[in-house]
Amino acid sequence: MKKIRIGIIGYGNVSAGAALAIYKASDMELCAVFTRRDPKKVKLQEGSVPVLPIGEADHMTGDIDVMLLCTGSATDLPEQGPYFAKKYNIVDSYDAHEKIPEYLSKVNIAAAANKKTAIISAGWDPGLFSLMRLYSDAMLPEGETHTFWGPGVSQGHSDAIRRVDGVAHGVQYTIPVDSAVEEARGGGILKLSPKQKHKRDCFVALKPGADKDEVEEAIRHMPNYFEGYDTTVTFVEIEELFEKHSKMPHGGMVLRGGITGKSKQFMELSLRLDSNPEFTGSIMTAYARAAYRMNLEASYGAKTPLDIPPTYLSSKSRDEVIKQLL
Amino acid sequence: MKKIRIGIIGYGNVSAGAALAIYKASDMELCAVFTRRDPKKVKLQEGSVPVLPIGEADHMTGDIDVMLLCTGSATDLPEQGPYFAKKYNIVDSYDAHEKIPEYLSKVNIAAAANKKTAIISAGWDPGLFSLMRLYSDAMLPEGETHTFWGPGVSQGHSDAIRRVDGVAHGVQYTIPVDSAVEEARGGGILKLSPKQKHKRDCFVALKPGADKDEVEEAIRHMPNYFEGYDTTVTFVEIEELFEKHSKMPHGGMVLRGGITGKSKQFMELSLRLDSNPEFTGSIMTAYARAAYRMNLEASYGAKTPLDIPPTYLSSKSRDEVIKQLL
Repeated sequence: MKKIRIGIIGYGNVSAGAALAIYKASDMELCAVFTRRDPKKVKLQEGSVPVLPIGEADHMTGDIDVMLLCTGSATDLPEQGPYFAKKYNIVDSYDAHEKIPEYLSKVNIAAAANKKTAIISAGWDPGLFSLMRLYSDAMLPEGETHTFWGPGVSQGHSDAIRRVDGVAHGVQYTIPVDSAVEEARGGGILKLSPKQKHKRDCFVALKPGADKDEVEEAIRHMPNYFEGYDTTVTFVEIEELFEKHSKMPHGGMVLRGGITGKSKQFMELSLRLDSNPEFTGSIMTAYARAAYRMNLEASYGAKTPLDIPPTYLSSKSRDEVIKQLL
Repeated sequence: MKKIRIGIIGYGNVSAGAALAIYKASDMELCAVFTRRDPKKVKLQEGSVPVLPIGEADHMTGDIDVMLLCTGSATDLPEQGPYFAKKYNIVDSYDAHEKIPEYLSKVNIAAAANKKTAIISAGWDPGLFSLMRLYSDAMLPEGETHTFWGPGVSQGHSDAIRRVDGVAHGVQYTIPVDSAVEEARGGGILKLSPKQKHKRDCFVALKPGADKDEVEEAIRHMPNYFEGYDTTVTFVEIEELFEKHSKMPHGGMVLRGGITGKSKQFMELSLRLDSNPEFTGSIMTAYARAAYRMNLEASYGAKTPLDIPPTYLSSKSRDEVIKQLL
């Protein structure tokens, strides 16, 4: 059987995770990785896949069935999503929640006009957690959903720390507040904001001569990121930071308590990830299969995980899935 | 906006749950309940919906958009599924796992030939748990999935107890074995059979003159149901049985531990239901919406929850779902 030919745009942690997932998928092959860096300086963890300058992706539409866009949501994807959706079926993990409708619309126009299939926001949140929010909302319409993130490293918050004057390096862990989780598990209606549901633990290495108190104050009062959160700042040597805090674990929970008739019902999805980017890459790989299949069926335009029939994700046939998993 | 007109075949606990869910859905109305009993003797919990003899369902195809079949998987659905799928869009919660492919095929022939949409096995297992098994299998292909049921009342096992000579009434609770759950949560590969993963607690009231030891032995050694399980039989007075054991709680867990690259990843869906039949009825109601929408789009034949795009379940529009839940 012909394998699904995959390309990857970008070479960071999520791309590396996607590459690992593609190597293990018997129905796929990784054809090329495209990067803005000097391709000679990019080392793949496994395999011997060509690493090409990103400009080459303009000319390879006959060689690649689905392109995974493993780049950032802030500035890369708003450009690259609509651009590559004109040429390829694409999958990304766009995660700027507020701007999803606008982004979806732009990618949709590009993909639909060119008979391509694009699946956006295919990670774990948005993605798997969104699926759980939707299923639980539809199956228990009278109820309350709570999403908790962590314990885990937030890349965005770690980056924010690193931009503070005097900081050499920093890592931030998002941690759900136990009492809020317990309240949600009890089926209670939480009157808590996201800020009250999560704590932020920061590990920071200072540049020589930097002032601890000033750095700590700057972090604590950073609007949007830390202001209003229960934030702890711990100063450590940079060696310790690299040694003990360079992994990327994450996780979280989606909980929904609801009422049917007079009965209380409760559902919870929880995740515990040793590697956040590897899991995201693995999910994007499953959605690459779906994008390929939907394109063959002439289902064009931009989709989200909430639009995709679940069987399309599986390497198994529909008959096998029904027999083994239903 | 025109409401989706729903009919219900059968009037038991699941039907009552479905009726409650339909009353609460602003985009649906319950048109009629069809029963094999004397309609005069059927009392609905709420509302003033006509209760009609089941034969009337032959003549109401112009009045009902989706028919929910809330009857048993052992003998009712194998007849009723293919029969009603010729006349109506249908939803059922067929749960005889082994026989699903055969049943799906029969319903598919009936529905497809008559341009109807049928969604089978739309409960929580099969149903929601199947979705979790599929998503977790596709997103973490290298791993191990474990399903645990309970703690909760198993209707099939309670019925089996009630068929034992000398038993006036009985209720059976299925309970996951804690050590097996912990092992699965640790990401271990369980070498345990379903029999070793679950205990069975039976509460039994005897008929006058029946022999405790004989009844207990008959229960413990009943093949398929109890033989090989860690089974406890507790004898109680019939009043206590009705007073303390007439509720229908249930629940369970789907756990999958897996590996991506060298990282361990773990996902768990857990359910805690005060009313098993009300939750099943609520899920069937959400799938009735999907059956109606797919039929409007000329997507005919028999489907399972694994085939249905998630957005089709929601009373919200796709735009709202994407904005609020993605």
